[in-house]
Amino acid sequence: MNSWRDNLRKVEPYVPGEQPELSDMIKLNTNENPYPPSPEVRRVIQNFDDSMLRLYPDPNSTELAKAVAECYDVKSGQVFVGVGSDDVLAIAFMTFFNSEKPILFPDITYSFYDVWAELFQIPYEKVPLNDVFEVEGKDYYGENGGVVIANPNAPTGIAQGLPALEEIIKHNQDVVVIIDEAYIDFGGTSALELTEKYDNVLIVQTLSKSRSLAGMRIGYAIGQEELIRAMNDVRFSFNSYPMTRLSVSIGAAAIRDRAYFEETCRKIIETREWTKKELAKLGFHFWDSCTNFIFARHKTIPGIVFFEALRKQKIFVRRFGNQKRIEDYLRISIGTQEEMERFIKEVKHIMEQAGSQG
Amino acid sequence: MNSWRDNLRKVEPYVPGEQPELSDMIKLNTNENPYPPSPEVRRVIQNFDDSMLRLYPDPNSTELAKAVAECYDVKSGQVFVGVGSDDVLAIAFMTFFNSEKPILFPDITYSFYDVWAELFQIPYEKVPLNDVFEVEGKDYYGENGGVVIANPNAPTGIAQGLPALEEIIKHNQDVVVIIDEAYIDFGGTSALELTEKYDNVLIVQTLSKSRSLAGMRIGYAIGQEELIRAMNDVRFSFNSYPMTRLSVSIGAAAIRDRAYFEETCRKIIETREWTKKELAKLGFHFWDSCTNFIFARHKTIPGIVFFEALRKQKIFVRRFGNQKRIEDYLRISIGTQEEMERFIKEVKHIMEQAGSQG
Repeated sequence: MNSWRDNLRKVEPYVPGEQPELSDMIKLNTNENPYPPSPEVRRVIQNFDDSMLRLYPDPNSTELAKAVAECYDVKSGQVFVGVGSDDVLAIAFMTFFNSEKPILFPDITYSFYDVWAELFQIPYEKVPLNDVFEVEGKDYYGENGGVVIANPNAPTGIAQGLPALEEIIKHNQDVVVIIDEAYIDFGGTSALELTEKYDNVLIVQTLSKSRSLAGMRIGYAIGQEELIRAMNDVRFSFNSYPMTRLSVSIGAAAIRDRAYFEETCRKIIETREWTKKELAKLGFHFWDSCTNFIFARHKTIPGIVFFEALRKQKIFVRRFGNQKRIEDYLRISIGTQEEMERFIKEVKHIMEQAGSQG
Repeated sequence: MNSWRDNLRKVEPYVPGEQPELSDMIKLNTNENPYPPSPEVRRVIQNFDDSMLRLYPDPNSTELAKAVAECYDVKSGQVFVGVGSDDVLAIAFMTFFNSEKPILFPDITYSFYDVWAELFQIPYEKVPLNDVFEVEGKDYYGENGGVVIANPNAPTGIAQGLPALEEIIKHNQDVVVIIDEAYIDFGGTSALELTEKYDNVLIVQTLSKSRSLAGMRIGYAIGQEELIRAMNDVRFSFNSYPMTRLSVSIGAAAIRDRAYFEETCRKIIETREWTKKELAKLGFHFWDSCTNFIFARHKTIPGIVFFEALRKQKIFVRRFGNQKRIEDYLRISIGTQEEMERFIKEVKHIMEQAGSQG
């Protein structure tokens, strides 16, 4: 007998992400910003005219696109906005990756690239990072259907310089090269200037990390107007009103408050550098992170030991247990200075316990 | 020479929807609610803790799903929430319509059904409405890959009774039947009770119309838990955090304020009935709308004449000029009583002018 169950889409069963909301937890597992968003965000919310919510939003999210354009000194027509950088990246994949040839991205990188490729039936190849977990530019010089590079990369935290990125772009003039800069504001160098020189480069950024707005789902892409127009054509062909009215106003306010943004990024970088020193003293190995997280493993104690012991103390970090090459690493988001001091104290405590048992 | 342009996705070029924001306009073109959302929405916004925006939202939008479940007396596990009913419908299409056989929906109905079918490469057949613009149940009894019925239908505004709908469902036990109830709260009978009896029925509703929240992009689906689980599996396979934190809280508040919702629906229905009488007196033909709009054509004067003359007076209605069968109709959203009085006055004026010229 036929059943509607025969027509269900086949997907990997859902494993819910860990989003604990405990009052006294230290949440270092999803690279959120430990500081609240700009005070301008509160002002927007307080002054928001709720009666406007009865109307559909501006399809073009003009206010937000304009704020991004002004911040980065580009035209509004060079900015595409979406529901978090996930939405922006998914639409970029749909728009630009329609070749028979595989798109290329690193084997260790943001875990959604292969998800979207599968979703849109885009052939892809994962290119292994080298022995020191870096992107090898020359591995991307062969024929392909497109290139995606997270810079800095996640979860390694390693940033590439512009000359290396530009070499990849030069060798890939006939496909679109997406640079995913979700973590760029914590120390890397943005490839934004390369969008002036190359018409095939798309920069993707997010307000979830450096603008403390993970809860509002706002991301954007910058590139030459022809690229952005193509993305808008695809988006509007199936979705008229992607952004909420509040997202547009809140996002614009956060982008305009550059001083607050610079100040919180500076504080996070300071705390990250302090944390690196402490972790080094305790025998951790890690890559030189340019992000708001540190990807580290201890020289002798397995990652799972720290992960579980920290959890018992309501300190949440991230582990990638199903990826052999990085299974002993912890990805530790940078919290406030106080949170990281508490974290280091607990790590010391765990090491003492592991030592006394060993 | 190869170009990245060769790999662009081919889509119909984007024609921006008309979303004028003039201070003194009367906007009757996108079926928005003329009344502001519940005062509870304002309270949520005023009391919202903006510092929470630094954190990702609850992936399951639990607060909102629970409010919907309580309102409709179902379990939370029977509720799927999304970014407007467009998002909910798109994910339902992806989840349930993976057959070689075509899905069926009316030829005149919500214009995004064929868009999503094309997007997800779902074969589809448009089934003509009968001579009086109604869905003919028996046209849906043949083999198919799924059925989508908007009830009340748009842009006709005509509602079907439950017995007719149930016949369609009975004849389609081996596929999923989606009932799109975007306009149900303005006078139709919801098929919600049929979800108890049939495990293959999915009801889709929205907060954009009857809850005055078009600007927040909130929709939901209700069905048996197995259907909802399947939709969540698909959603979470490629998108972890669909809803903003503010959407979840605002949506829940609006759903919980049942008294306000009933009051605004009642007012809109009253104004609609008044408008129908006036239009009839003026020689308009229209279907018996159960929605917050009236789909009407004048017996002698073409729709385009009204459309353009109203526009000059900053009164915006909707026309479907590219669909032959309905090109002379106007879809007139129901505004406040004052707005509809002004609308009727302008219509009379236009008819006088047309008469004097004729």
